[in-house]
Amino acid sequence: MPYVNIKVTGGSEAPTTEQKSALIQGVTELLQRVLNKNPETTVVVIDEIPMENWGIGGKAVIERRKQK
Amino acid sequence: MPYVNIKVTGGSEAPTTEQKSALIQGVTELLQRVLNKNPETTVVVIDEIPMENWGIGGKAVIERRKQK
Amino acid sequence: MPYVNIKVTGGSEAPTTEQKSALIQGVTELLQRVLNKNPETTVVVIDEIPMENWGIGGKAVIERRKQK
Amino acid sequence: MPYVNIKVTGGSEAPTTEQKSALIQGVTELLQRVLNKNPETTVVVIDEIPMENWGIGGKAVIERRKQK
Amino acid sequence: MPYVNIKVTGGSEAPTTEQKSALIQGVTELLQRVLNKNPETTVVVIDEIPMENWGIGGKAVIERRKQK
Amino acid sequence: MPYVNIKVTGGSEAPTTEQKSALIQGVTELLQRVLNKNPETTVVVIDEIPMENWGIGGKAVIERRKQK
Repeated sequence: MPYVNIKVTGGSEAPTTEQKSALIQGVTELLQRVLNKNPETTVVVIDEIPMENWGIGGKAVIERRKQK
Repeated sequence: MPYVNIKVTGGSEAPTTEQKSALIQGVTELLQRVLNKNPETTVVVIDEIPMENWGIGGKAVIERRKQK
Repeated sequence: MPYVNIKVTGGSEAPTTEQKSALIQGVTELLQRVLNKNPETTVVVIDEIPMENWGIGGKAVIERRKQK
Repeated sequence: MPYVNIKVTGGSEAPTTEQKSALIQGVTELLQRVLNKNPETTVVVIDEIPMENWGIGGKAVIERRKQK
Repeated sequence: MPYVNIKVTGGSEAPTTEQKSALIQGVTELLQRVLNKNPETTVVVIDEIPMENWGIGGKAVIERRKQK
Repeated sequence: MPYVNIKVTGGSEAPTTEQKSALIQGVTELLQRVLNKNPETTVVVIDEIPMENWGIGGKAVIERRKQK
């Protein structure tokens, strides 16, 4: 019955369909292994956040990427 | 003053504008009826999640739909 | 498969166990009626927020309650 | 290490890139000033919600805007 | 820079400190392996939800546990 | 109408009532100044996360604090 929300940067950094499936499968297995949670009712939601909507260190990621 | 977040699958399964209005009205009335919450300050946010970003049972919904 | 998160004030305003059950049942039925969602995989999470942790109008709810 | 999520209406009301940067910088500084949190590990995520997906007072914002 | 939120039932079903550490480590490694995300800026937040605040199938988990 | 959720570490690092009020007031003013949002309908929710439930760099904060 766990609920997992994964937020990552989207746009040019967005995960592929295969990578999303790997995240869903991996985190579901992790919850089964560590907490014995039933995979059938484990829900995973992946949010892709535009790089101008994600900030760290007081700056949007899109600006940080430019500076590197 | 309640805050409600409803996540449903989007894309070809996305709710229509009328259905979204029905969800907003229905959940606001529910909170008024059960908890006597003031509808004027009840906030509802609906998120439509792409079917490849939503997982259950260790698989993305888009894969599950294909298997049926 | 919908996921619903309901945040309400806790403490002296916290819903009773019966009220929580009514919210869970009510919102699950709403999603079935409006969007034909399967109740068996509809997940509802209720968060009770302390009144000093909830703000509206620039003030914590606990201060607003005192002023009335 | 704080995590901040800001949800605002999108579409024609969406913030510009400059406004998003100002929100990220402003809330990061606020957490540093009030709680002495390290800006380097303060994460901010801005969600732009379509006006038909946001409800208040039992109605979608898009309907409320029309009535004014 | 990913942000992960894991919600599980609390109370008598709450994870131990060791299990929480295993979840944090496991999901951080998963994001590094699948998406090459930097572990140093991967944030994980675990929420323990009281069993009367979590619903599935239209009923609170605490009721479902009793029926078994 | 914005909704803001601020997550910080709790326990011995939890903000005081005065600090919570300063966060609520500060972020409400920020949204008014940057986006001209109406303070009356700006909602802020602060979550205090136990240090063993918050992870960064693959470790729970409570472990990181001990190592320093």
